[in-house]
This record gives sequence, structure tokens and C-alpha cells, in this order.
Amino acid sequence: MIKAAVIGATGFTGALLARILQAHPEAEPAVLTSSSFAGRRVDEVFPEIRDETEYLAYEPAIVSEMDVAFVCYPHTQAHPVVAELRERGVRVVDLSADFRLPAEDYPAWYGFQHPRPDLVQEAVYGLPERYRENIRGADIVANPGCFPTGMLLAVLPLAGWLGLDLVVADSKSGVSGAGKTPSAKTHFSAVHDNFRSYTEIGHRHVAEMIGELGRAAGGEIPVSFTPHLLPVDRGILSTVYCRPRAGAEMPDEAALRARYQDFYQGEPFVEVREHAPALSEVQYTNYCRVAPLVDRQAGIIKVVSAIDNLVKGASGQAVQNMNLMFGLPEALGLEGRL
Amino acid sequence: MIKAAVIGATGFTGALLARILQAHPEAEPAVLTSSSFAGRRVDEVFPEIRDETEYLAYEPAIVSEMDVAFVCYPHTQAHPVVAELRERGVRVVDLSADFRLPAEDYPAWYGFQHPRPDLVQEAVYGLPERYRENIRGADIVANPGCFPTGMLLAVLPLAGWLGLDLVVADSKSGVSGAGKTPSAKTHFSAVHDNFRSYTEIGHRHVAEMIGELGRAAGGEIPVSFTPHLLPVDRGILSTVYCRPRAGAEMPDEAALRARYQDFYQGEPFVEVREHAPALSEVQYTNYCRVAPLVDRQAGIIKVVSAIDNLVKGASGQAVQNMNLMFGLPEALGLEGRL
Amino acid sequence: MIKAAVIGATGFTGALLARILQAHPEAEPAVLTSSSFAGRRVDEVFPEIRDETEYLAYEPAIVSEMDVAFVCYPHTQAHPVVAELRERGVRVVDLSADFRLPAEDYPAWYGFQHPRPDLVQEAVYGLPERYRENIRGADIVANPGCFPTGMLLAVLPLAGWLGLDLVVADSKSGVSGAGKTPSAKTHFSAVHDNFRSYTEIGHRHVAEMIGELGRAAGGEIPVSFTPHLLPVDRGILSTVYCRPRAGAEMPDEAALRARYQDFYQGEPFVEVREHAPALSEVQYTNYCRVAPLVDRQAGIIKVVSAIDNLVKGASGQAVQNMNLMFGLPEALGLEGRL
Amino acid sequence: MIKAAVIGATGFTGALLARILQAHPEAEPAVLTSSSFAGRRVDEVFPEIRDETEYLAYEPAIVSEMDVAFVCYPHTQAHPVVAELRERGVRVVDLSADFRLPAEDYPAWYGFQHPRPDLVQEAVYGLPERYRENIRGADIVANPGCFPTGMLLAVLPLAGWLGLDLVVADSKSGVSGAGKTPSAKTHFSAVHDNFRSYTEIGHRHVAEMIGELGRAAGGEIPVSFTPHLLPVDRGILSTVYCRPRAGAEMPDEAALRARYQDFYQGEPFVEVREHAPALSEVQYTNYCRVAPLVDRQAGIIKVVSAIDNLVKGASGQAVQNMNLMFGLPEALGLEGRL
Repeated sequence: MIKAAVIGATGFTGALLARILQAHPEAEPAVLTSSSFAGRRVDEVFPEIRDETEYLAYEPAIVSEMDVAFVCYPHTQAHPVVAELRERGVRVVDLSADFRLPAEDYPAWYGFQHPRPDLVQEAVYGLPERYRENIRGADIVANPGCFPTGMLLAVLPLAGWLGLDLVVADSKSGVSGAGKTPSAKTHFSAVHDNFRSYTEIGHRHVAEMIGELGRAAGGEIPVSFTPHLLPVDRGILSTVYCRPRAGAEMPDEAALRARYQDFYQGEPFVEVREHAPALSEVQYTNYCRVAPLVDRQAGIIKVVSAIDNLVKGASGQAVQNMNLMFGLPEALGLEGRL
Repeated sequence: MIKAAVIGATGFTGALLARILQAHPEAEPAVLTSSSFAGRRVDEVFPEIRDETEYLAYEPAIVSEMDVAFVCYPHTQAHPVVAELRERGVRVVDLSADFRLPAEDYPAWYGFQHPRPDLVQEAVYGLPERYRENIRGADIVANPGCFPTGMLLAVLPLAGWLGLDLVVADSKSGVSGAGKTPSAKTHFSAVHDNFRSYTEIGHRHVAEMIGELGRAAGGEIPVSFTPHLLPVDRGILSTVYCRPRAGAEMPDEAALRARYQDFYQGEPFVEVREHAPALSEVQYTNYCRVAPLVDRQAGIIKVVSAIDNLVKGASGQAVQNMNLMFGLPEALGLEGRL
Repeated sequence: MIKAAVIGATGFTGALLARILQAHPEAEPAVLTSSSFAGRRVDEVFPEIRDETEYLAYEPAIVSEMDVAFVCYPHTQAHPVVAELRERGVRVVDLSADFRLPAEDYPAWYGFQHPRPDLVQEAVYGLPERYRENIRGADIVANPGCFPTGMLLAVLPLAGWLGLDLVVADSKSGVSGAGKTPSAKTHFSAVHDNFRSYTEIGHRHVAEMIGELGRAAGGEIPVSFTPHLLPVDRGILSTVYCRPRAGAEMPDEAALRARYQDFYQGEPFVEVREHAPALSEVQYTNYCRVAPLVDRQAGIIKVVSAIDNLVKGASGQAVQNMNLMFGLPEALGLEGRL
Repeated sequence: MIKAAVIGATGFTGALLARILQAHPEAEPAVLTSSSFAGRRVDEVFPEIRDETEYLAYEPAIVSEMDVAFVCYPHTQAHPVVAELRERGVRVVDLSADFRLPAEDYPAWYGFQHPRPDLVQEAVYGLPERYRENIRGADIVANPGCFPTGMLLAVLPLAGWLGLDLVVADSKSGVSGAGKTPSAKTHFSAVHDNFRSYTEIGHRHVAEMIGELGRAAGGEIPVSFTPHLLPVDRGILSTVYCRPRAGAEMPDEAALRARYQDFYQGEPFVEVREHAPALSEVQYTNYCRVAPLVDRQAGIIKVVSAIDNLVKGASGQAVQNMNLMFGLPEALGLEGRL
């Protein structure tokens, strides 16, 4: 039985992690920490959950017995905790952005100098469909951002296959992506019956998209990305427009789909579909559904991908990474409705 | 007082037309027709409306006294009625697609041979911001599609200004755009807490977009368009990605906004904004809000536009056209919340 | 032109008041105050509103020229401001609870000793359908609570007509009733796709219900009231179950409706309906719709009433009261969609 | 392994039954029938479900090998099928209303003369909390209506304990309760951001409520019931007001809760709560949460109960009944999120 700690277990991702681990046949959420709710029980904070575990205040000592810790802290607050955990030999899946980029990119994208480039160097980007083998041996896994997960799974099959000279990623996310802290932007009256874009220029997830896509393609591809806020709770649907380089031959739809099917052959959580998926097909699951389509008139390959932002986009993928790190079947505890 | 008929007055657009006309200081909805509700009163069909007018069954005779008729029929069913109305000298605003395209484009885009190319030839595309002068003298105005309205208002300022080699238009529409007829796709349980794309390839509104954009730019520009269904009732938000031709110089944001402000100088219903608009800013109004932004990293001009699909995207714009046709102030009866 | 101040003009009720007054033909929102947004413009805070007025910080001096002030402060914070306004001779419509109850009831229901029983004594309860004449001459009008408004309009026609021995009022309110301040309870993810009751025992609005109903009936009637939170923005629908005293004869539905029609004869904003109203019939209007029904099997008169909580339940009714106070037509500026 | 047929497996309740049975450790959905989708696969009709079973057209022969059949037909269409199944020795859980009432009550409540009073006589009302022992031996179980399930679980602990002279049950249901067939009433635009009551007088579920409550109390108690339509997909929240007979002593809240806890001691799916439950606490589960409260001022015991209308209110309870009929642990396959 793997002993797991969830550091920051009362936010949306931490609470879901605790729930997934509680039902996991080979792991248990042995320590749940919370700064706001230390001393209270899970079922007091989340009356819909039947779990009497008590939240603890975080201090490094309480996690030293753990096999793995999931760190659910905001960026800049996660890396010190990750460092403490590594000193105690605890393996880490970090859900923040603190280990996703090369150390030298933090000043430009996140506005701080990363104090631990050594740990950044050691970390593996936790997208199993791309780095499965490295994840198995990793001690620090940087769990990908929710938007990059959906976008990269849509585009990666094209990256090494067709030369692209532009990717437009138009993503629409449920409100849970904005976190649990109440704000004017997440007030029901501001979201309900409404729709808007946000951070239209320079969203931080673009750094992951450009980096990973360029790595896969062997050269940087421009990415124009816009996130939007849907009046739904869960899920990200991304409509991704890929433009082949001038002169590249446009595949027909059968060849395109075959490419995707080959690429994702055997993947437990990526499903290539003929029809563009609706959010409802993936909500509350760890599945990503991807439908590649040919827009011949415009010379564009259009890919629609759908994930649940909190599951495949965060906590589910984190457990998928844990399964890999500990030699368990990759899909263990992640099938069905979570 | 202008006497107006609404042909098909119990669908979403027809009912809204009746309501706008009822409050209009210089027009009156003298005849409302309905095939399903002939003989019943407005306030029986729409209990929230305080109007005791009785719906009539359509026959050409009842509209001969009218100054103008708004035809709210599906495509292929509208053109015969328009022909009958023109024979009786009634001026027409047609909300269907039957007069929006060149006659020769109907077989390819709408699957039928248009029987009245002469009337098509005569019709003016009813986008006042582009064809204001022609609309004043028109006897048939083809009211634009809802998606083209939002998309064209976003892109037209660029068309004659910068050379574009690609436009990606990603649009998200409220459910009222799908019409009032109940179906599996508009069932509450299918839409609520959900989100999806539809008609990803070959949506008919693309024909209007390519045609009008090419006309403005002096040459065809490829358009990749995807409509999506939001769990909201009203509004279309379009995120439009415009790629300047290789070698074109990218404007800075101030120059870009200045171009838009010049282009829409004096327009009663287009507002150029610094921040991308939310749907709530335009719902239930005839306003279109447009925010042009520079995504320098990707080499893209990103424009977010928002309209109410039933108002500026249909019935409000139809009344705006009527105002022009009859020499009234263009904004009459269209200000404020409709 | 009546000069009106809105004290606290950036909350939901204050902002709506400003909007109604801006369009009012005989009044103008001459002063808008805001503690959080002093120095900023209306259209900066509410981008959907086209109004460049600047918010001021409240101080008594700035309102001395006003004919009337609407006070939109929380209870206990309103009465000192009302006192200051009265000293300067400004007439007041107070939207808080500070003047709705007899002074001696404040300790029990609101937990404070009211320091100005003299002003409480002077205030008139601003339900025009009941106290129209007193409101005309009042200098302080206590605008009713949103729940009492809908509940009393449902029950008052029975109060003097049938002896009742129990009233059960089950009310369902949109989220705007909870105010604009972000909280865990109004977070989109907590409200969307959800439904709950709250303050099931001892809600403060019960004091108004019991008081006013007892006054109308000539003796106290027990009231069991439960408010619930709907995943909608606007409106209150109340289902009110009235039990006639043992031995009272049950009217038939025609007689019952006739009683309601008589009672509300000539009322500009109460509509007696045969079919129970939906929220959508009254949202964004100052109308209350009431449908009385006979549940003979259970020996109950069931009344369904619907209002918009921010309009008839707050700001619209406040302007209706202002109209009465200043001898204007009662419905001025309040018709149609607000 | 129990072989189960779902007759009518593409409606909301039938599809959920198939899904629950597919994951059930001791049963399998061996036959799924559908009149509209015969010949198509589950995952074609419900793309979110990973199940390749093909729907069959119903004919009695195909179910003769089954151990149990769940009949998901509308009332009047179910009883002939139930009769055919019984002739073949198949045990039945019927989700329609055809076996819930005494045969003689059908003309008054459902407008038809029941042709098989013998089978009605044989059927057991499938509320396990009340008729557990009878269900074990039953060959026909009449699965309760969704509203009676929530209402009866709220009131039954009082029935034999306190004399009641009135029960007011105010219920609010998600849209899935109206079934999958598209209609004007379930169109997204009619439900979203809206709320309404329906069938305010004489709803058929009242027959079950009065009957079962009277049976438990040893004498008829008047019930005034109003269903309402929430803009949510799943769940029923009932606020139930119980008035003790004149002279009955009102319990305090501790005694009241103790009574409920005793009454539901050991029940796998009823949870007595101190705080009124939100719908989200029970959605997608087979749990019913009940919170009894004392409204001393009004002399009322107020009980808030919450269930998922499709699970505990239909398909989950049906499987709970199957578990009892076949001697399986009652909660098998029904725990957690369904």
C-alpha cells in the first residue's frame, strides 16, 4: 500500500486527489494537510464526501513516512515544499507550475528567479503519453497545466508528422479551473448565463505549449492561445487549428485519423474519435477525447479535444503519474466516473 | 407610422421583432402571422409579453397594405413569400439565407437551385456598417447571418488595411441560435453544464464570411470557422485570429485600436473596446463590441467580438435596416435593453 | 426634476436604482456614492452600462441639495445615515431593514437596540399595495424585504377575507438576493447545478411577514417560512400554502380568483393570473404575478407568486415609493423591462 | 450472475439502469431493449458510455432466460409487458406507476381501469426502508415514484410517532425527471435561468403519498404537494412541513433527531443530518439525506430531504430492490458515485 500525502487538500485539486486516493486499491491518502481547515474533518468541509479523516497543518515531519506527496500549492509556494520533501526522500508529484519549465524561463513567464534550478533539472514533465518512461524513474514529476494537457494531446500527433507553421488554440474552461477562492470573477452572477475570454495575450500556459510542442517538432512553432470561461463547473474543450507549412501536402481525413490512432495506440486515456467530443463525454473522467478533422477549404487541420480540467488536467493525471512511478498498472483507480 | 408585418412571428426572431416594433415610435407590428398559433393571442403564447394582438394565418392578401414585411422563415421557404410580397409592392427584410449569396452559390452551399436570381440580384446584404447607402434604397434586404455579423464586424477594419492570409473564427453561441423547435440537441439535459462544437466543417455561414471578406479585401482570404454551443440563452462571442501575410508589418496595439476607432467612427452600434467584451455586455442589446489585440509572439491579430445573436445578429439588425430603408434615424427604437 | 442620491450605488440594488433613475423622466441620479469605488466612473465598474457619472465618497454635505436619497446599506449601518439625511431635510427611501419593524422588535430579530425609535415610529412600510396613502406623505419609507414583498402580495387578499390558522411560505430566490460580495456560498461552483435551503428556522424576514399579516388579519397567524437558493440570477418564486381555520368554508376557484381580482383592481404592478407564473414572466420587471389555487383535497389555498427580487423586491419598489412620495404617476419609469 | 433485462433502455432511467448493472458485481445487463434504437449500440446512442452492447427490439421471447426484468415504460404501457414477463416466470421491477396503487384507484388517478388487479394485488411497493421483508419474496416490485420516495423518507418517522393533521410537501426537481423526449417545456431556453411550479393541483404522485402515509399513520393525513422544475439536471429537494395535531406536544430538536436516527438505524441509504442537505450532496448517488428541524414559532416540524431523482428516485432504488429480491447485500453495486 503506497502511503500518499496531499499537501493542500482542501482546494479543488487536492480534495479530488484525496477522493481518488481513498478509492485507489494500492494507495491511501495517509496525510491530508490544510492551512485553513487543520483540525477539521473531511466530511465537515465537504458534506458530500463520506470520509472522517482529519486535516493536519503542514510541517515537513508529518510527511517523512510517506512514499509520495502531491503538492497542491500555488506557483512560488510549491517549490520550497518540494525541496523539503525531497530532502526527506519523499517522491513528489507537483501540481503547481514550479517545475514545468526550464529554470531560465521563470523570470520571463512567472516573474521570479527559480532558486532551485537543480531540482527543476531533475523534474520530469508529467505527460504520460509523451514521457512515460522518464516518469517511471522520476522523483519529481511536474504535473502539466490543464490547458497544455488538452492542447498538446490534440497537436502532438501532428508535430513530428507534418510541418506546421501556426497553431491557434482556442480553449474553453469550466469555472473550477479558477480555483475555490471566492472572487468577483467566480461569483455566480458574474459567470452564469455569460461567457468571456481572459488573459488573451501572454497566458503562462503558453510557455508549456510552445516548449513541449517545439521539443516534439524539433523547432519552435508559433502558438496563439486564448482561454475562455464557460458557465459550467468542469472540463476544457479546445478547438485547435493547425496550419501546415506552405507546400506541405494536406492529408485526407482517413489518413489523418489513422495517424492519430497509431500515435495513441494502446493509450489507456486517449480516445481518438470520428466526431468532435462534447464536454459531457469526459467530465468526471480521466479520459481525453480527440477528433482530428480536415478543413480543406481553409487549409487547416482542426482538432477538437476534451478533458476534465480537474481530472486529466490535474488530479487524475497526477495519480496516473504516481501509478507509473510506483510500477502499478497505469489506469489503476482511474477508470470510470471519478 | 410604418406598417410592418412579421411573417412567422412566433419563432425566437419573429417574436422579438414583434416586441421591438411594438415599442418602436415610428412603426407598428400591424400584422403578425403564425402557422402554428393562428387565432391565438400574443400573450397566450408568450405569457411574459403584455400584447393582445392575434396571430393570423399567412396569406399574401393580408400584407398588401403593409409598408414592410419581415420574413422569418427557414431557407428555401422564404424566397417564395418574398416574391409574393414584392409583387404587391411590399418592401422586405428577409431574415433567412435566401438572398444573402450570389444566386450561383446556392447549389453548393444550400443544396438548391435558386429560382429567382433576379430578386437575389436586387437584394442588398443588410450589414449597415458596410452597405448603409445601398440599404436606404433597397426593396429587399438580406439580413446577415448571426455568425457572419459578429465575425465580419471583427475583421472588416483589417480587410482593406493589412494583407491577411488566414482568418480563424472560433464562435460560441447561445442556444436561442438553434431556434425554438424542441430537439434532442436543445433539450436542457443535453446543453446544461455541457459545451460542444458542431458543423465543424462546411457550416453554411462560411459562404457569407468568405464572400463579404473577400469583397472587402479585394481577394479571397481563407476562413476556418467553428461554431460552438454555449449553455446560455443569448449571445455570440467570436474569437477571431487574423494572420497578416508574410512580410506585412505588425501594427502595435495603439495603431490597431486607432484603425478600428476610425473605421467605426460614428457607428451607432459598434463599440471598439480596450478589453475583450463579455457576452453580458451586449445581451439583449443591438450593440456589437469589438476588441482588437496584438499577439506579437504568435504573429496574430486577435479580435474578440460580442453580439446578441437575436438582436444585432437578427431582429435588431433587421429593424436597423428598416430604419435605413424608411429614412428614420438608424438607432430609433433600438437603444437600451430590448 | 427630482434630484436623487443613491447611497451605496455599486451593490446590486444601488446599481439598479442608478440605472432606473437614469432613464426616469422626472428624476435624475444626481449623486451616486460608493465606498469601494469613489473616484471611478459607472462604466468602469459596470462595463455594460453606458454612464460616465463618477462615484463619490459619502459625506452628509454632498446630499443636502437632494430631494430624496435611497439608502442601500446593510442593516445597522443604514439608520445613522438616514438620521443625517433627515436632519438635512432630505426625504429617504431606506432599503435596509432598519425601519421595517417596531423599534422594540430589533433586539430579538436583529440583535441590536434601535437608537432612534422616534424615526422608526415616523417611517412608513413601503408596500404601496397596502400603505399607498401613508407613503405619499412619508419622509422615511422603509422599503420591504424581498421575501415579504412576494409573500405578502400572495396572502394579503386572504387576510381580511378568510380566517387562516397557518401559512407556509416556501420561497426560492435567485443568487442576486445574496448580494455582490464574493463568498463560498455564491461561488459559481457552489450554486450551479445545485439547490439548497438556508436559514430554515428564524429568518429575519419572518418578522415582517408575521407583523404585516397579523396587522391585516387583525390577529397573529403562524407563518412557517423557508428560503432556498436557486441557480438563477434573478427572481423569487413563492409557493404559499394557506390553511383556513377549522369550520371556514373553502371558496371555489372562481370565487377565490374574483377576490384577488377585486383586491388588486387598478394596481399597476400586481397581476392576478389563472396559471401559476414562471420566474421568467417577471424577471427584470416591477411586476408581481399571483395565482391563487384551491387544493380541495388537502383543505389548502395555494398561492404562487413571482417577483424579481431586485426590482419589485427592492429597487423598483423603491422608485415606486418615490413616485408616490413626490406625487408622480406611480408607474413612471417602471414599465417594461428594466 | 443474475441475468437482467432492461426493457426500454434508452430513456433516462433505463440507460442508468444499464450502466449500474454493467458495473454490478453479481448482475449483468444481458438484454437491453429499445424501440427507437434497436440494432444500434449503447456507445452510439450515448457516446460517453463505453459499452458496445446492441439494443434489441422487445419481444417476450428474448427475455425468457432472464432472472429479472426492469420495465421502464410509461404508465399503461408497462402492465401488459409485466404480465408477459410473469407468464414466463421472470421476476419484475416495474418503474412505471402501473403497480403502485390499489387497483381500484387507477380510474380516479390515472384515468384507466386496471385490467390486472390480480397482479396489482401481488405487487409489493418497492420502498425498502418500509417494505424490505416483503420485497425479498416479491415477484413484482412496484418501484416508487421519485417524489413519493423523497417525501415519504422525510415523513415516515413521524407517521407512527406524532399525530399529524397536515403535511405540506414542496418539491423541486431537476429536468431529467421530465424524461428525455424533447418538448417545449424541456427546451433549454425554457428552463435555463428560470423556475416554475407545475401540476399544482392533483399531481398523480399524491396518490402514493397519501396512501403510504396513511398506511403508516393508521389513518389518512391531508397532503398538499407542489412539484417545481429546477434549472438543474438531477435531484429532488423536498421541503416538508408537518403539523402536529392540536394538543400534540412538540418535540425538541434533539428528541426529533433521535427519533429519525432510531428509525433509520442501519439503513444503508438514508442519512439523518443536522444541517439541511444540498442537492449536490446526493446527486449521482443512491443516498437520501434527511434533516428534521423544529419551527417552534409556527408549530411545524420542517423536514428537508434530498435524493437523486434518477438514482434513489428510480434506477438505483430498482437495483436496491433487485438486490433484496435475490438475497444479495442490499447496497451491492450502489455505493459511491453512480
